[in-house]
Amino acid sequence: MKCTFVSVSAESDFSIQNLPFGVCSASEAASPQVAVAIGDYALNMAELAKRGLFDGINGFNAAVDVFSKPYLNDYMALGRSVWQEVRRRLQDFLSNDQNPVRAGLSASDPAVAMPLSSVQMHLPARIGDYTDFYASREHATNVGIMFRGKENALMPNWTHLPVGYHGRASSVVVSGTQLHRPSGQRRPDASKPPVFGPSVRLDYELEMAFFVGPGNELGSPLTLEQAEERIFGVVLMNDWSARDIQAWEYVPLGPFLGKSFGTTISPWIVTMDALEPFRVPQPAQDPTPLPYLCSESSRPAGYNISLEVDIKPKESEQFYPLSRSNLKYMYWTLRQQLAHHTANGCNMRPGDLCGTGTISGPVEESFGSMLELSWSGQKDICLGDSGITRKFIQDNDVIRISGHCQADGFRVGFGSCIGEILPAKAASS
Amino acid sequence: MKCTFVSVSAESDFSIQNLPFGVCSASEAASPQVAVAIGDYALNMAELAKRGLFDGINGFNAAVDVFSKPYLNDYMALGRSVWQEVRRRLQDFLSNDQNPVRAGLSASDPAVAMPLSSVQMHLPARIGDYTDFYASREHATNVGIMFRGKENALMPNWTHLPVGYHGRASSVVVSGTQLHRPSGQRRPDASKPPVFGPSVRLDYELEMAFFVGPGNELGSPLTLEQAEERIFGVVLMNDWSARDIQAWEYVPLGPFLGKSFGTTISPWIVTMDALEPFRVPQPAQDPTPLPYLCSESSRPAGYNISLEVDIKPKESEQFYPLSRSNLKYMYWTLRQQLAHHTANGCNMRPGDLCGTGTISGPVEESFGSMLELSWSGQKDICLGDSGITRKFIQDNDVIRISGHCQADGFRVGFGSCIGEILPAKAASS
Repeated sequence: MKCTFVSVSAESDFSIQNLPFGVCSASEAASPQVAVAIGDYALNMAELAKRGLFDGINGFNAAVDVFSKPYLNDYMALGRSVWQEVRRRLQDFLSNDQNPVRAGLSASDPAVAMPLSSVQMHLPARIGDYTDFYASREHATNVGIMFRGKENALMPNWTHLPVGYHGRASSVVVSGTQLHRPSGQRRPDASKPPVFGPSVRLDYELEMAFFVGPGNELGSPLTLEQAEERIFGVVLMNDWSARDIQAWEYVPLGPFLGKSFGTTISPWIVTMDALEPFRVPQPAQDPTPLPYLCSESSRPAGYNISLEVDIKPKESEQFYPLSRSNLKYMYWTLRQQLAHHTANGCNMRPGDLCGTGTISGPVEESFGSMLELSWSGQKDICLGDSGITRKFIQDNDVIRISGHCQADGFRVGFGSCIGEILPAKAASS
Repeated sequence: MKCTFVSVSAESDFSIQNLPFGVCSASEAASPQVAVAIGDYALNMAELAKRGLFDGINGFNAAVDVFSKPYLNDYMALGRSVWQEVRRRLQDFLSNDQNPVRAGLSASDPAVAMPLSSVQMHLPARIGDYTDFYASREHATNVGIMFRGKENALMPNWTHLPVGYHGRASSVVVSGTQLHRPSGQRRPDASKPPVFGPSVRLDYELEMAFFVGPGNELGSPLTLEQAEERIFGVVLMNDWSARDIQAWEYVPLGPFLGKSFGTTISPWIVTMDALEPFRVPQPAQDPTPLPYLCSESSRPAGYNISLEVDIKPKESEQFYPLSRSNLKYMYWTLRQQLAHHTANGCNMRPGDLCGTGTISGPVEESFGSMLELSWSGQKDICLGDSGITRKFIQDNDVIRISGHCQADGFRVGFGSCIGEILPAKAASS
């Protein structure tokens, strides 16, 4: 299928097979509203709704209203059959010159298609709750070896359930937001009391995250199949981590201020329907998980998504590679994470966000954090042949995550998830 | 000061010195809106605003609008000087027969004062993020002894910072909401694989929790004094805990599904201004905390609030005592918790909720959980002289927390925080 409404290059992340959802505003003064990316444009979904493109879709009677909101939660709540029909209509609009809504419309009409270069992106949803998992075996093993030695690398529970924790929703920010280096308690010398000050072991974590569509009532768990149906789509995520703050605070109740100073996500949500062609088997699970985490279907539940992390160090104007990984390495799948999350009756709401945890692969270049790449700061990470090195992130370094699925002749890409670290700020009274 | 608008008994939790805020609806069909409790009545705050009671308060131009909302977030955002002036005007309205808004009004006017027995209470705020601390030394020590032995009871970080973790906001419910027993993975026999099923070690935790008023920008920490100014008020909280699920899942990332199936709070938020007369010194802190957790003021930062937990076992129609504790035992104060929470730049928003953690005291009857009272299920908890015993909560048991401050001639009370546990529910496809 080819887009005829605007031209889309074969290298574009935003092909007609993708059609990711986001929230953008055309100018500083304009209200944020729902958009879909195609090529170098953001389609104004409320405008297309006004022109009748989504008329008569079963269960979707308020398209103009839903797409005029500054967040996607209401659309996420509608569920898969509406999402799929909206996708079909969009694809017809974009590829079929005879589509009636196309009559008299041109791609240069700024009411319908806004150049991506001119819009401002916003957080795509109001995130009620944000959860982060720890679902890459390679990452958990690497961290385990560093903290507990080779023999006790994986905790006994790790192969039985997708370990996760509640994160901080208020500090999830959209790509491009600058963040201040966090201050906090750390204990560099275990023989002395802790000190307070800016983190000196600031790290990124290469993650992806999914947005929940229709949720579940409190007390009513989801089956694995129900969980899969309720995932709206996926973004890139940088789970910034202050390793020194985290190491001192995290026993016994888990990560807290080492994480909650900021979490960056990419602005465009790639839907599960767009990712469908890129399903691959997940890694073999041994031991076999308990029945609530097993599917009777033989349909693969992993996704082949290439992921890259690059750094623009403050000394340079150029990006250098850090990590090259893939979502397919993930041991626990997205649907296993969501089913497990609701197994106790915990209620999910539309727009809730679940991170995968750091996505590391089997070889060193696939390690998804500086903690792993510098092996807890024991060795330098060399940035190309620039002579510049890092063990952790320095002030004014920029970290960029990008990701895409490659098919024959088109891409389904995620754009990028970017963030710069500014110097720490003290409290001022 | 005496209320002359309605009669208030000396035993009432809701004296004119209290004036707690909540959200209630007069009937199933009516919209929830902001109310203040006095004696056996809930004052309709939007109605009082319409009659001009809050006219001309600096920084508060939309009283009718703010009090017509089904949540308190907008009012919480206004800050202490508005809260204090609203309190003064309410007290004058209630105590002064000559108050001009009183003209022609009687307490039997249902538009102004609704009998508490007839209203339905709702969650008082939209909780953006919910955090739970672990701030009672006695509780942390008891749990530590059970899990790690006497020598390692308190972790090294515990006396240096208020340990906390992000909780689940979606499953915070208002008093009276029934909850289903959670199912989950647990490993009763460490030599065998884990099993899945309803928790068999279901517990309560006696806590209090504070609501944040005006928040802070991401990246901008609050000083201890700023933190104190930004706390709106306090509720009772039952942090229901499935000990067996928690024990298996919590290493290394902390409590997750063992907690997120439900957290119950009392509906009336007692403001910090009402609690002012009940300030008492906090327990001595040794070692002296780092400067960002220390105040130069000698004003005490603890609160003398008597707390009770009772159980109505399924076998009985009567409540029996479980715990008798007091907030004054808490090692880390509310303002220390909030200042610490923002020390890394984490942004708080109006309506965010922070739990204190289980409030245990020095003697056994003050232990704030069944885990402690039954010493991890090793001994029976006897319910009065009924012959009924418990180690953990059984289906259809009701747990009730209540709390109050007692002054000479009046009370500032919290009402109650109540919840019944229903049998577990499986996923249904």
